[in-house]
Amino acid sequence: MKIKLILFLGLLIFNLSSFAQQKPVLVSPQINADQTVTFRLKTKASNVKIKGTWMKENAKAVDMIKSDSVWTYTTDVLSGDFYRYNFYVEGVETLDPLNSYAERAGVRYESILVVPDGVGKLYQVQAVPHGSISTVWYDSPSMGYQRRMYVYTPPEYLENTTKNYPVLYLLHGAGGDEYAWIARGPVGPILDNLIAQGKAKEMIVVVTNGYPGQFASPNAGPVNTNVDKAVTETMANGKFETSLVKDVIPFIESRYRVIKDKQHRAIAGFSMGGLQTQKITNANPNLFDYIGVMSMGLMDDNRFGPFNREEHAQQIKALIKAHPKLYWIGTGKEDFLYQSIIKLRKTYDDLGMPYEYRESSGGHTWNNWSLYLTELIPRFFK
Amino acid sequence: MKIKLILFLGLLIFNLSSFAQQKPVLVSPQINADQTVTFRLKTKASNVKIKGTWMKENAKAVDMIKSDSVWTYTTDVLSGDFYRYNFYVEGVETLDPLNSYAERAGVRYESILVVPDGVGKLYQVQAVPHGSISTVWYDSPSMGYQRRMYVYTPPEYLENTTKNYPVLYLLHGAGGDEYAWIARGPVGPILDNLIAQGKAKEMIVVVTNGYPGQFASPNAGPVNTNVDKAVTETMANGKFETSLVKDVIPFIESRYRVIKDKQHRAIAGFSMGGLQTQKITNANPNLFDYIGVMSMGLMDDNRFGPFNREEHAQQIKALIKAHPKLYWIGTGKEDFLYQSIIKLRKTYDDLGMPYEYRESSGGHTWNNWSLYLTELIPRFFK
Repeated sequence: MKIKLILFLGLLIFNLSSFAQQKPVLVSPQINADQTVTFRLKTKASNVKIKGTWMKENAKAVDMIKSDSVWTYTTDVLSGDFYRYNFYVEGVETLDPLNSYAERAGVRYESILVVPDGVGKLYQVQAVPHGSISTVWYDSPSMGYQRRMYVYTPPEYLENTTKNYPVLYLLHGAGGDEYAWIARGPVGPILDNLIAQGKAKEMIVVVTNGYPGQFASPNAGPVNTNVDKAVTETMANGKFETSLVKDVIPFIESRYRVIKDKQHRAIAGFSMGGLQTQKITNANPNLFDYIGVMSMGLMDDNRFGPFNREEHAQQIKALIKAHPKLYWIGTGKEDFLYQSIIKLRKTYDDLGMPYEYRESSGGHTWNNWSLYLTELIPRFFK
Repeated sequence: MKIKLILFLGLLIFNLSSFAQQKPVLVSPQINADQTVTFRLKTKASNVKIKGTWMKENAKAVDMIKSDSVWTYTTDVLSGDFYRYNFYVEGVETLDPLNSYAERAGVRYESILVVPDGVGKLYQVQAVPHGSISTVWYDSPSMGYQRRMYVYTPPEYLENTTKNYPVLYLLHGAGGDEYAWIARGPVGPILDNLIAQGKAKEMIVVVTNGYPGQFASPNAGPVNTNVDKAVTETMANGKFETSLVKDVIPFIESRYRVIKDKQHRAIAGFSMGGLQTQKITNANPNLFDYIGVMSMGLMDDNRFGPFNREEHAQQIKALIKAHPKLYWIGTGKEDFLYQSIIKLRKTYDDLGMPYEYRESSGGHTWNNWSLYLTELIPRFFK
């Protein structure tokens, strides 16, 4: 028994020290004083690469450098931001085993670091009051089954049980799901930090799954038989857009303490979610006073459901009359959809539709979408 | 523009098909008709191993077999259950890149599968009403900072706003955190399925972080400066036990619709959490009517805080008088703490403390803790 106990304690001490990496031989990632970052991996493999979001979009993984069976790579100076990366050991994508912070990105997992400078600080968990983030399932009569969403409620929501709140509906892009904005936004820290700084109103944020045919993310549980259905549905084909209006909003407005008018509803999304944001607000001009379209322009062909130029113009004219308080369009200069955004702006200019335009550096990336969220949140409900 | 759009669509189609693995060349894991499971990994590496929870506890990773640059491994026949595994590519622990279902286990990530037979079905997300699972931060005056917990609220909680519910407090073991029972229990599917089958009462489940000094799991966000504090605190040293009673229960009972009496409080935990369950209920005999101690016996030395045999006996006598409706002790036959559980039972027998004893096969494993949860939940609040 004594021996077993000693073994038990030994195991615990071992677990705790590896848990906290108290005296690590290797550290990875290591943010250096000059804001370069060094990554390290120990392996006998003969081919080890790294790929991270500080590289150009669509860049290939690059070789790490071996010395004494430790592979190392150091970046250039990085600005304060969120960065994701993976190692490739003999071609197999691998998390950084020395970094306990990782998140799912679609069907993959990525190691994560934040360079805590500038906007990067908004992405960190700080010592401020925190909202709650919940997985919530709702009946979707328009789709015919239960679906999962995430709901952020602000720090005071649980305590202040008489106050009602405005709601932001936040839509993800292709390959994502209801978890994408939560993990990669990250919605919690951005909202918590902006609210604590007095820059944002307390609000509820609803993050849906934009794939018609999919009931939840691939990681919602051990079985997810509907995932395959996603490919049988064209993206942004109208079904999700309908369900957001007919199923999601009524659910939220009946289950949460919500202010149920146009002045207290916002919607924003990027890429596929930017197209869905356009379709939803075009078809429902009196639902939202705050509209954010990120990294997505005019899709004026029939690939995402029929596009009718005259009908579109009529919708935009109705939207002009509805006079939303903010219609915001944002994109990176290098976004591969940049031309579609020029076309959207020209169409709006021709029709006299007011909008605010934001152009950042970079491309079709989470770094831009997180940045846009930090800029939009303070604009909503004021 | 046309070319860009075609590229965009091409990327989407590529993403969607890889997302749903529509026509995969390789499938992994593949549950075969005879309930063996085959794993596959394509890599040029020369050393590829696999380790999974169907193996003996503390077993070493075993070689996979290479054929045409695909490495394969097939298990023996597996019973319906939860299984976790990883590949080791040249010694580097790697998720199965063909399996989109993975979860964090402490500071590691593991690929997961369920063999959907017997108890395994309770671990799957089924087409039944689902509860919500929320990350909730609470002030912990006794520890001096905010801490994070998970709260499961049953399916009808959001809709039926007048009903109050009983609460189960669920504690994890060493190396775990507030996410452990959620991801690895898994609390959501087990509760949803047992409630849907009419076998369990609708209840709230509160999963705390049992490490004094740690404010949240290593994955709560990009910054978690308190993680290192964990090693400076002895585990089960009393601080968490105090905070559960002084901070957690009052928070839950003021923020949630809860029935606030002994008859509607349960507590259970395994390993470190089983020790904490004993300490909390020994010191507070009138708080809980349902008590579950998993894979942990009597720790009658001073390594986890001072142990005084006479004081312990007095506490157990008070507990006998308090007459909890269920005092449950469970362990696997091969648990390395088995002797401590014999000692606990003998002590209770000598003192006349009634308890129910459950002995299963296997050791100090999640397969046992998940199984015990499925057996305990139907016993609570009835």
